Amino acid sequence: MSARTIAQIGEFTLIDQIEKMLPSGLTADLLTGIGDDTAVLDWRDGRAMLITCDIQIENQHFRRQHISFEQLGRRAMTVNLSDIAAMGGTPRFALVSLGLPDALLETNIVDLYQGMQAALAPWNARIIGGNMSRSQSDVIIDITMIGEALATQVIRRSGANPGDHIWISGFPGVSAAGFQLLEHYGNRVPTDLTPYVRAHQIPIARNELGQALATCGFVTAMIDISDGIAGDLNHVCERSGVGALLHETKLPVPPGFQRVSELVSMSGPELALHGGEDYELLFTVAAGTPAHALVEIGNALNISLTSIG
Amino acid sequence: MSARTIAQIGEFTLIDQIEKMLPSGLTADLLTGIGDDTAVLDWRDGRAMLITCDIQIENQHFRRQHISFEQLGRRAMTVNLSDIAAMGGTPRFALVSLGLPDALLETNIVDLYQGMQAALAPWNARIIGGNMSRSQSDVIIDITMIGEALATQVIRRSGANPGDHIWISGFPGVSAAGFQLLEHYGNRVPTDLTPYVRAHQIPIARNELGQALATCGFVTAMIDISDGIAGDLNHVCERSGVGALLHETKLPVPPGFQRVSELVSMSGPELALHGGEDYELLFTVAAGTPAHALVEIGNALNISLTSIG
Repeated sequence: MSARTIAQIGEFTLIDQIEKMLPSGLTADLLTGIGDDTAVLDWRDGRAMLITCDIQIENQHFRRQHISFEQLGRRAMTVNLSDIAAMGGTPRFALVSLGLPDALLETNIVDLYQGMQAALAPWNARIIGGNMSRSQSDVIIDITMIGEALATQVIRRSGANPGDHIWISGFPGVSAAGFQLLEHYGNRVPTDLTPYVRAHQIPIARNELGQALATCGFVTAMIDISDGIAGDLNHVCERSGVGALLHETKLPVPPGFQRVSELVSMSGPELALHGGEDYELLFTVAAGTPAHALVEIGNALNISLTSIG
Repeated sequence: MSARTIAQIGEFTLIDQIEKMLPSGLTADLLTGIGDDTAVLDWRDGRAMLITCDIQIENQHFRRQHISFEQLGRRAMTVNLSDIAAMGGTPRFALVSLGLPDALLETNIVDLYQGMQAALAPWNARIIGGNMSRSQSDVIIDITMIGEALATQVIRRSGANPGDHIWISGFPGVSAAGFQLLEHYGNRVPTDLTPYVRAHQIPIARNELGQALATCGFVTAMIDISDGIAGDLNHVCERSGVGALLHETKLPVPPGFQRVSELVSMSGPELALHGGEDYELLFTVAAGTPAHALVEIGNALNISLTSIG
């Protein structure tokens, strides 16, 4: 091992290396360890506990001038709700670790918690612990989320088979486009492009969809698109030991995407494949499953589902 | 609510206020919510799951020049092991969120994980998930720890009764004194004071002691001394609805403490009462319990236990 920096070797290589250092066997209590959207523990009565954590750091994941504290609270929670969604689970409990600069206002923190609670409310999920600490200048939010699912219905990254079709929910790239619009225009983003900005500020986790896909019986693997389609599809391929053929022309294109991609000087596929932070679900479907079965699930929840490979 | 900053209102007041915003009721799954060393969930077969998280931020909790990455990993894990100890539990699983500046070396991260695993090894506990993110300049480590205990043997902050005696393990103030020695002398701390420096660099969580105290039957409340005796005793009093009388003269004094306190220009009681980060256990014992019963528990584990109030 040489004296390479993290930047030189890259996040994913580093994660692979760390994973090799850690014990990987499963036990009666541990049903899935490192390497999926969440770890899975045995709970009771046939239930599995899904557990995940995700850190959001100012100027890495968000800028304070682009997002209110209420939105930031929602967003930080949604990032974790989405990992529960990707396993097909229901959110239950959250723990919140905060690093807060001294100069923040009391009202900022109250807004932050209101945002977090608003994101949990549809699931009747609750904050049950956490801690606060001072930070030098950046707001840091690390949330641990606990969800549940029937142990027999948990969908993992590792279940894809050769011949499966690849599907995606929503319009990946919209959140990254919104972030770029904010970077270019600040609070003067053209009003007809507000939906893009909203997708960055208030992303929605696909928990209802995740549950429907987990129970429908023909979804073999699933992941949330937090790193962009390219990276996350690659995770599924690695875990499942399969290859993937993606049809770039099949990527779903939202209204106005062409114009936005010109405004921010990034191509549509670049935004969709590498943008990340969309919190849509990418999933594989057993070969031979009729497309209309998927479309019906999407229609029932008013979420567009697209076969992309 | 006025536009006060966090610094103006203080961490504990802010936490109290946030707690009031959050729902507090318990359910079949949730046995203890916010306000203890860990949250407690029902697991199965009479077991309780203890869950907690704690964030460590560079230049707030540690300085990179005072501690190696291996030590930092141990320390960040120990902070969380200690919360499990304070409930009387056994560590089982950990999730690790990291914020890492680009310029860190690959070897730094490997050392960090080796330190974390070394801290978990005595309990056969394992890292089962986490995430890595870039940070601007500071190393950020947030760990979520899952422990277990028999549901009937969990010791909470809220169990103290009027007339109980207050006991403490080890020598609180030693870690803070070690930190101050490093601040004053850097790597030229007098060698006979190395144990102080070690107490800051490699604190030990009291899980064996916590388990022994939880099962002995006469401990009514327990907390770990991460904020210093004064603050943490106050937490027990608030949760238990009792007052406390502390005998400052009874505080245990380690060898050389007088000299160290002169070297760093802080009084012994100041270090012990407000220093924090010792990860010793403070606990209350039912009135009438013979002192020798406690002393025997301490002797068996080679840990000094002292009645302080």
